[in-house]
Amino acid sequence: MAPIRRLVLDVLKPHDPGVVTFATQLSDLEGIDAATATVVEVDETVKTLRVTIEGDDLDLERVRAEIEDLSASIHSIDQVACGSRTADDPWIDG
Amino acid sequence: MAPIRRLVLDVLKPHDPGVVTFATQLSDLEGIDAATATVVEVDETVKTLRVTIEGDDLDLERVRAEIEDLSASIHSIDQVACGSRTADDPWIDG
Amino acid sequence: MAPIRRLVLDVLKPHDPGVVTFATQLSDLEGIDAATATVVEVDETVKTLRVTIEGDDLDLERVRAEIEDLSASIHSIDQVACGSRTADDPWIDG
Amino acid sequence: MAPIRRLVLDVLKPHDPGVVTFATQLSDLEGIDAATATVVEVDETVKTLRVTIEGDDLDLERVRAEIEDLSASIHSIDQVACGSRTADDPWIDG
Amino acid sequence: MAPIRRLVLDVLKPHDPGVVTFATQLSDLEGIDAATATVVEVDETVKTLRVTIEGDDLDLERVRAEIEDLSASIHSIDQVACGSRTADDPWIDG
Amino acid sequence: MAPIRRLVLDVLKPHDPGVVTFATQLSDLEGIDAATATVVEVDETVKTLRVTIEGDDLDLERVRAEIEDLSASIHSIDQVACGSRTADDPWIDG
Amino acid sequence: MAPIRRLVLDVLKPHDPGVVTFATQLSDLEGIDAATATVVEVDETVKTLRVTIEGDDLDLERVRAEIEDLSASIHSIDQVACGSRTADDPWIDG
Repeated sequence: MAPIRRLVLDVLKPHDPGVVTFATQLSDLEGIDAATATVVEVDETVKTLRVTIEGDDLDLERVRAEIEDLSASIHSIDQVACGSRTADDPWIDG
Repeated sequence: MAPIRRLVLDVLKPHDPGVVTFATQLSDLEGIDAATATVVEVDETVKTLRVTIEGDDLDLERVRAEIEDLSASIHSIDQVACGSRTADDPWIDG
Repeated sequence: MAPIRRLVLDVLKPHDPGVVTFATQLSDLEGIDAATATVVEVDETVKTLRVTIEGDDLDLERVRAEIEDLSASIHSIDQVACGSRTADDPWIDG
Repeated sequence: MAPIRRLVLDVLKPHDPGVVTFATQLSDLEGIDAATATVVEVDETVKTLRVTIEGDDLDLERVRAEIEDLSASIHSIDQVACGSRTADDPWIDG
Repeated sequence: MAPIRRLVLDVLKPHDPGVVTFATQLSDLEGIDAATATVVEVDETVKTLRVTIEGDDLDLERVRAEIEDLSASIHSIDQVACGSRTADDPWIDG
Repeated sequence: MAPIRRLVLDVLKPHDPGVVTFATQLSDLEGIDAATATVVEVDETVKTLRVTIEGDDLDLERVRAEIEDLSASIHSIDQVACGSRTADDPWIDG
Repeated sequence: MAPIRRLVLDVLKPHDPGVVTFATQLSDLEGIDAATATVVEVDETVKTLRVTIEGDDLDLERVRAEIEDLSASIHSIDQVACGSRTADDPWIDG
């Protein structure tokens, strides 16, 4: 199977745990080299994060389970990059 | 024949399989070095993806067959780059 | 004669042949190192492509003949770069 | 625990201490390699800063305590980057 | 005299000769390393080109004479870069 | 104390001394490697400058005293970067 | 005295001499490594140029005298960069 190298996820997270706990726990998962969470919207009970995860062979189901363990949920997937290297989307990274 | 080095495709995909399964299966095709799927629109029954595929000698028909095996379809082709190297479009990548 | 290093062409193409066939055939022409076709508009019977062609010494008439062999036509020329190297247009590539 | 490599914080700060004192004190914290404060809004009694903090293993609670010692408060967290390296968010840094 | 390294010219050109003939002839002038013509407007009888010319020591009058030999005319000069190296304009190339 | 590496200041300056005298005098201060003044607004009696100052260990009070010696004043501070290196603000420099 | 490394000037110039003569003469001044003139506005009797001048130790008064010898005048100064190196303005060059 071609490995997943980058995932960009839209995540809904209650205010607790905080985004720092969320990001550090997430990046602690085996196989994750880097996780960057950008807060894109704050509502009364929930924050929307865009979460960029990079690694040599990411496992979405383990990522999803970890996110749910952290009381959050994947609202949608913005980008998935797979393969022996990462291809940039020319319309975004050009 | 000059090889295809990059394909950027507009793909319509039902919600199942998910975009991660879609991207990993696709990038698993022989000859594909990297596949990046960016979700650009979500409708009730379908997602629109911009899929960037890179390799040394891509085969559109095998790509199309694989996409259809994954219950999705190529709605349109946004960009095709061929040759012994990849030329960037100055209006996009400049 | 100073060689042509890059041509950016506005091409009108019927739906058949497809843009992949179009780009691979075109980049197969002697002297073309790379051809990238970006679809910029889709009408009922025709697609408008912006085609970036790079090489050490491009020949417009052979490019035009090949494009016409492929049932398409050059609608207009967006950019021509000539010389012993390629100068970028500071207003586009700056 | 995966280390925090970059924090981008929205900070509310009274006019005293000034932003320079604020930034130098903050970057003086053990483990902080660099702190950059950009003033994004100035109100009658308060300034809003976007504070970018980088280090090999940042500690939010020590950062928060230091910020509060400086009479300021973290209004919200804009971005957290964790891991063995820093992943850029393609929608911002692309 | 400090040499001219880059000229960016606004050129009005009748439809004949074509932009490719125009650019190749122009870049054939002694002292021109590279000439890039971008079509910026097409009217009934005339095309407006932005022409970027680079070399170690360009001669405007020879460039102008060549442009007029090609039935075109310099409508205006957008940029001139002179000196022992090329300085970029921070408002354009920054 | 962590050193200040970059200061971006909003400076109000009467028309005399001129911006060149202002910038050269300022960059002459011990510890300043580079000072760049960009004029952002011109009013009847005053100019608003955005002044970027870089060095290994800047001293705001000496910078402020020098600016006041030059009959100008710091209207506000736009950015302060401190630490053993300079962190870029991803929302500005990304 | 800390040397001036870059000057960006707003220059008003009558139509004669032309911008090429203007830029070449200007860059011929001792101490100027590069001068780039971008035409930003054309009025009936005058052109407005943004002139970027780079060197190791520029002398504004000699630059001004030369500009006036060329029948033009400095309308305003957009940017001055001084020091042992050039600092970029993060809001423009970031």
